[in-house]
Amino acid sequence: MELPSLGEVSTPGRVAAPGEGIGGDELALATRNHGLPLEALRYEVTPPGLHYVLVHYDIPAADPATWRLAVGGLVDTPLDLDLAALRALPSVTRRVTMECAGNGRARLSPRPVSQPWLVEAVGTADWTGVPLRTVLAEAGVRPDAVEAVFTGADHGVERGTEQDHQRSLPLGPATGEDPGVLLAHTMNGRPLPPQHGYPLRLVVPGWYGMAHVKWLRSVTLVGTPFTGFQQAVAYRFRQEPDELGEPVTRIAPRALLAPPGFPDFMSRTRVVRPGPVPLAGRAWSGFGPVTRVEWSADGGRSWADAVIEPPGPHPYAWQGWRAEWQAVPGRHALSARARDATGRVQPLEQPWNRGGFGNNLVQQVPVLCC
Amino acid sequence: MELPSLGEVSTPGRVAAPGEGIGGDELALATRNHGLPLEALRYEVTPPGLHYVLVHYDIPAADPATWRLAVGGLVDTPLDLDLAALRALPSVTRRVTMECAGNGRARLSPRPVSQPWLVEAVGTADWTGVPLRTVLAEAGVRPDAVEAVFTGADHGVERGTEQDHQRSLPLGPATGEDPGVLLAHTMNGRPLPPQHGYPLRLVVPGWYGMAHVKWLRSVTLVGTPFTGFQQAVAYRFRQEPDELGEPVTRIAPRALLAPPGFPDFMSRTRVVRPGPVPLAGRAWSGFGPVTRVEWSADGGRSWADAVIEPPGPHPYAWQGWRAEWQAVPGRHALSARARDATGRVQPLEQPWNRGGFGNNLVQQVPVLCC
Repeated sequence: MELPSLGEVSTPGRVAAPGEGIGGDELALATRNHGLPLEALRYEVTPPGLHYVLVHYDIPAADPATWRLAVGGLVDTPLDLDLAALRALPSVTRRVTMECAGNGRARLSPRPVSQPWLVEAVGTADWTGVPLRTVLAEAGVRPDAVEAVFTGADHGVERGTEQDHQRSLPLGPATGEDPGVLLAHTMNGRPLPPQHGYPLRLVVPGWYGMAHVKWLRSVTLVGTPFTGFQQAVAYRFRQEPDELGEPVTRIAPRALLAPPGFPDFMSRTRVVRPGPVPLAGRAWSGFGPVTRVEWSADGGRSWADAVIEPPGPHPYAWQGWRAEWQAVPGRHALSARARDATGRVQPLEQPWNRGGFGNNLVQQVPVLCC
Repeated sequence: MELPSLGEVSTPGRVAAPGEGIGGDELALATRNHGLPLEALRYEVTPPGLHYVLVHYDIPAADPATWRLAVGGLVDTPLDLDLAALRALPSVTRRVTMECAGNGRARLSPRPVSQPWLVEAVGTADWTGVPLRTVLAEAGVRPDAVEAVFTGADHGVERGTEQDHQRSLPLGPATGEDPGVLLAHTMNGRPLPPQHGYPLRLVVPGWYGMAHVKWLRSVTLVGTPFTGFQQAVAYRFRQEPDELGEPVTRIAPRALLAPPGFPDFMSRTRVVRPGPVPLAGRAWSGFGPVTRVEWSADGGRSWADAVIEPPGPHPYAWQGWRAEWQAVPGRHALSARARDATGRVQPLEQPWNRGGFGNNLVQQVPVLCC
């Protein structure tokens, strides 16, 4: 008898056929992982349990008493730190808006088959931890190192490859003041919840979620760029499956609207009364402050400027915005779009790639005014 | 011009056509609401953010400084309690397993179109609050009262009916020692998270989730049975749309298995190595203690007994169970089923009704041993 192989249950990435409904596999991911309920955009810091979560494999069991962070590879002094040693180092707190690289994927046509986000894979938290550069300075990075590889405790199979979850960062972002990478042990003033990486995770402000390795067990300095699955196979911008593709890194600008009025349970269409309707939301970019938010009540045919909060002390946290809409009876589609200080702006037509990554197509909120 | 009406965006309940994939409306609910990631069955008390959540409309904004609970209707002394007054009353803490009445709906054939749960809409928390009967005794329930109606602050449209979320309980469960209904202000030792009803919710141990009204604003004693939408239209067991149907109340027995080994990302199929594989999970029933858990590795053709924890001091909390499986190479389907002290047992064929309620068909966990 031929023994079964992983390829039986773990198949290559694919794009849905035209008109193909959401499959059982996509649904199983959607019932586990969750986005930010959009009314929770009202909170500047997202309360526990409302921040988006994507877990590739299982949330690992973690024993804080035995947890170790190993820092090794091309360093002068390998480190083996327990949680008490990490917490004894000087910590900083940074407010960071985090977004899944696959946010918006389920609205793409054709649809890449993976976690089927609509627009809600985002959240903002106050992360407290030790700057990565503090620990790397203590270990002493050797001159031949080019990247740091981060390994999490979550283990699984993905597209045929069995793996611990691993990602790397070039030494520039890993050791620089900007974006100021953290080894975070605290979220919103409390120990990390299990699904957010308890007891230790990486936080890479301004980068999509795949960079923020959870359940962090080791940091390994390497002399050649890392080619692991999550770096070289997943999280690349590709039009064709055999392209090398550019890596997914920083968060493209996006504005979201907290849907006004009240919803219909099943369609989630909003209902508002005629007259002035306050509109509010948040906007962010991993490339720089948001400098303009526009909104539209006609599906993007015409736009008006919203009032945006200036960037605060946390350059990688979202900024609030407000506007007022004079609603008249009928069906409408509300949208918002953000522009950042680098001139990047959200597109009105979908930026498609096979992974559905970095897609910041403007949101559409259907509204009935009656 | 004819003005638009709510019926344009809020349509009657329906059952999916044969082979109809999960729709955009079901996906929008699945990305907002979330289940328990099944590996989190390892925790006796579910950590924040992992307990299942179903929000019918929006999570309302709540100002604790102005929040009031009004107790009125057929009472001798109407009450208007602020949070400080409620917290000053004697509180109790109860460990309660809560499950959505629609758990398992998305596995039904044909599939009722609503929140598409697979098997994960469950969680267990320590709820602290004031017994409802304490507050009702203070108000003095008049002899002509037959039910208490509970109104939450969430507002929306559902199947064409605009409403505040409202449910009722007969006076027996509302005022009795069993199941011991709570006005809960604390979850796992902390203020309720917004999505779990902050600042105040009802907890009805042993009943499906629809009874545990969140964001509770009022308790009104009434002299005739309540006929609001969530009582008389939704949450009834019906085979045909025009039936009256029996009301959904207590939780039917269920065992869940924490899937062993590690998962494939996309299919969520489990991978284990040949040899002994520890199996573990939780089982519960709203009708009484679980007295037997059996497990199967061949899709339910043969069954063996698991070892179950005896019921502890919390009669409405789940009980752990364990077994050991000798895995051999190949494809397998693991299942578990619970029986409770009343003799109720999980079915091997789907208990179908139009709402997909109270469906405790046994779980199937696909596993590859290689």
